[in-house]
Amino acid sequence: MADQLQIGRYTLNSRLFIGSGKLPHTLMPEVIAAAGAQVVTVALRRVDFTHPEDNILDYLPKDIILMPNTSGARNAEEAVRLARLARAAGCGDWIKIEVIPDQKYLLPDNYETLKATEILAKEGFTVLPYMSPDLMMAKAMEAAGAAAVMPLGAPIGTNRGLKTRELIGIMIEECQVPVIVDAGIGRPSHAAEALEMGAAAVLLNTAIATARDPVAMAAAFRQAVEAGRTAYLAGLGPESSLARASSPLTGFLD
Amino acid sequence: MADQLQIGRYTLNSRLFIGSGKLPHTLMPEVIAAAGAQVVTVALRRVDFTHPEDNILDYLPKDIILMPNTSGARNAEEAVRLARLARAAGCGDWIKIEVIPDQKYLLPDNYETLKATEILAKEGFTVLPYMSPDLMMAKAMEAAGAAAVMPLGAPIGTNRGLKTRELIGIMIEECQVPVIVDAGIGRPSHAAEALEMGAAAVLLNTAIATARDPVAMAAAFRQAVEAGRTAYLAGLGPESSLARASSPLTGFLD
Amino acid sequence: MADQLQIGRYTLNSRLFIGSGKLPHTLMPEVIAAAGAQVVTVALRRVDFTHPEDNILDYLPKDIILMPNTSGARNAEEAVRLARLARAAGCGDWIKIEVIPDQKYLLPDNYETLKATEILAKEGFTVLPYMSPDLMMAKAMEAAGAAAVMPLGAPIGTNRGLKTRELIGIMIEECQVPVIVDAGIGRPSHAAEALEMGAAAVLLNTAIATARDPVAMAAAFRQAVEAGRTAYLAGLGPESSLARASSPLTGFLD
Amino acid sequence: MADQLQIGRYTLNSRLFIGSGKLPHTLMPEVIAAAGAQVVTVALRRVDFTHPEDNILDYLPKDIILMPNTSGARNAEEAVRLARLARAAGCGDWIKIEVIPDQKYLLPDNYETLKATEILAKEGFTVLPYMSPDLMMAKAMEAAGAAAVMPLGAPIGTNRGLKTRELIGIMIEECQVPVIVDAGIGRPSHAAEALEMGAAAVLLNTAIATARDPVAMAAAFRQAVEAGRTAYLAGLGPESSLARASSPLTGFLD
Repeated sequence: MADQLQIGRYTLNSRLFIGSGKLPHTLMPEVIAAAGAQVVTVALRRVDFTHPEDNILDYLPKDIILMPNTSGARNAEEAVRLARLARAAGCGDWIKIEVIPDQKYLLPDNYETLKATEILAKEGFTVLPYMSPDLMMAKAMEAAGAAAVMPLGAPIGTNRGLKTRELIGIMIEECQVPVIVDAGIGRPSHAAEALEMGAAAVLLNTAIATARDPVAMAAAFRQAVEAGRTAYLAGLGPESSLARASSPLTGFLD
Repeated sequence: MADQLQIGRYTLNSRLFIGSGKLPHTLMPEVIAAAGAQVVTVALRRVDFTHPEDNILDYLPKDIILMPNTSGARNAEEAVRLARLARAAGCGDWIKIEVIPDQKYLLPDNYETLKATEILAKEGFTVLPYMSPDLMMAKAMEAAGAAAVMPLGAPIGTNRGLKTRELIGIMIEECQVPVIVDAGIGRPSHAAEALEMGAAAVLLNTAIATARDPVAMAAAFRQAVEAGRTAYLAGLGPESSLARASSPLTGFLD
Repeated sequence: MADQLQIGRYTLNSRLFIGSGKLPHTLMPEVIAAAGAQVVTVALRRVDFTHPEDNILDYLPKDIILMPNTSGARNAEEAVRLARLARAAGCGDWIKIEVIPDQKYLLPDNYETLKATEILAKEGFTVLPYMSPDLMMAKAMEAAGAAAVMPLGAPIGTNRGLKTRELIGIMIEECQVPVIVDAGIGRPSHAAEALEMGAAAVLLNTAIATARDPVAMAAAFRQAVEAGRTAYLAGLGPESSLARASSPLTGFLD
Repeated sequence: MADQLQIGRYTLNSRLFIGSGKLPHTLMPEVIAAAGAQVVTVALRRVDFTHPEDNILDYLPKDIILMPNTSGARNAEEAVRLARLARAAGCGDWIKIEVIPDQKYLLPDNYETLKATEILAKEGFTVLPYMSPDLMMAKAMEAAGAAAVMPLGAPIGTNRGLKTRELIGIMIEECQVPVIVDAGIGRPSHAAEALEMGAAAVLLNTAIATARDPVAMAAAFRQAVEAGRTAYLAGLGPESSLARASSPLTGFLD
């Protein structure tokens, strides 16, 4: 009955995933609460398992789903290694694959990402690959066992919105697994647009971290995501190029 | 303390105004409730004061602000006549001025609208002129006593969004009175964008009426408007063209 | 037979008008030649009739049409005065009306511009009003005797392109007089787009003046304007949202 | 001295490549002449080597560079087979790789395309892969020996323009080999925009074939491509958001 999102074996009520990379740890609980987020991604290389003090994991609510990411990995092998370390350290079986050799635009390497996806899906991970939007590559990720695909709307951290909407729209139409827009979303209107198009969810980090008031911004995104999803389910009216009168032009004045 | 919208002598909590022109009367109470709307516009020429049955006014909650509009007027004189009739009939002192001689794109006549604004403001109306976006004309409306200005985002009924955002953005920056985007908004993301830019409110009609489920769509717009407003107040982060890493590229893998 | 542009009593072969406000005088002859321009606009208040040395007029080819503009005028009266002075000084009967009270975005005052248009058209001027794009105001300019209307694509000097294309497109469709896009065009692709849409011409200044090589840029715009016009006449194919194969998918491999 | 385009061992003066897939053969000579094209792509599976009558090759000027394409190939192996057949049949050593398993949006398979690129580059072909825009994959194509990369602006045949400009802009900035925009370009302004951004060339088919007058449209594109390239070399002025006066606001009226 409820409108829920299925990712692998997991059923979610929230369609707003949150990153932890740019916010002070102490702010995370409030941001997560305001966003209503159930899934939080954490860069594994930022977790210092040997020095438990100031560990980001200590600041996350116990009931969220931790989605470690392989940020810092430059190829499939490094991503696979990080994923296995995460699971061994008790971080659960979700893994967001980030393979980013490009240090200027931080664009992912789809092919290495695909290889890591294939390996980790076979090992039972719930794999969410971050990718450059590309239909055929998304279908390959799907075939390799990805639980969802995560195309970028614009380069990481740019707050530029759905610059790749043409390609993402096609992915949404043609993919079987959920499409989660993962980078570039900088405003609630961007998030609403993604959900209106049929995206299953969005993942945010910079937009919240660079706001003057991150907690309020998290709340704004929560509403925008819900608005976009509701609109998608409610069936948006068509666009037209000619005007149509709101009120029939008859009566009263005649 | 609360974030309220001042229009003339009135203080509002809702920034989502609703039109009644394309929906079955019987659906209006539910739509208004779902939208959380406090202001509803009604075309005067559609109100048949002599046949009270099936009168749209009967379907509006008692606590909303009725904003009659002069739809059907082709010049200032007709608009003024309609406004006075409305007040005499007990419709209150709000008036949305629509002067639309163009029957193809339904575009307003700013000059006739300005003339009607001047006359009606002097007569004590709370005047909200619907206009083609234009800074100098908006400032003239302001000087003539408009309580707010209502530029179009795209032609009426097109659901095309903020096609005139360049001009509306300048109006928001330079006008003293609230700027309320009044036509063209077709999706919650459009409404959120308007509020994020600093628009004071939006007015919707077609977007809700052409949705498969108008009541759910009204709820979606309510959330989007709140999201956009919250984001505006929370201070949006800047856009950048180069990527910025979400996580500092150090540690763990080294 | 030839595709010519009729402005009042004048027949032109070039659809690229040039401004002179930001370039060194000595560069004007080369820029005009590279642009193939027949119409050049000059700010009257920059012409010092009492000190003929370094007078911009001395740098203009004899066979161009001089279009003085009323830049600096803040209302209709000032614009009318400038226009009369120009004609009296032998500058011919073309006048581009600029009435710009706004000193931040340099946006025109459509209403004062309309008043000046009406007066000057009756006095036999060939009147080209610079305006904020607005269909009903353009039709009023037409009725007042404007020989063409000149809507802005974006604020003067911004190089931002056709940000107002929605409103300009409607003006092109509905106006009887030529529509000439006058501000904001920053790239040859912007100029080509305007002509493809059916604009009669474009007027440029900043785009050429801010180029590293203004003469080469003038030549680029000349080609772009011709390309856009040719495409308009050749009938552009429709856009589609689904792909259509370039080559029928049969044969050879089967 | 001249501004030429180097593709592998070849030096070109024209930056407008033409497809032959949708036009009547008899129109090709005129279209190629009007476009000033030096490179023409032909779908190999449409060339019936056994029935020389009505062979597209007979309609191409002798001095153009024939660029056979592997349209119809669904994987690397099929593309490689087609390329070898083409060379064996005397079609020269250029090959445009198209591997398109998706029959709805006709989107290329970047991974299979990369595999074919690697094989054929080693065999001495001048390889131009058609691809979904993606920086890391473009760099992989480069490393595999591609002479240029050909990202799509929008799905084939849609005439929608540079919908992927965000990704193409990054490819232009970061790739060593020329970037040639290959699908989606529907208007001369789209082509000019690609060249202004720094694309090395564009390839057209549908835009010309769906024009009312294909020969005139080919001429329009030729001018637009030259305009865009000239502008790129002449150094475009910056965009600004605030207006800058074209004429200093002093003198005359004061």
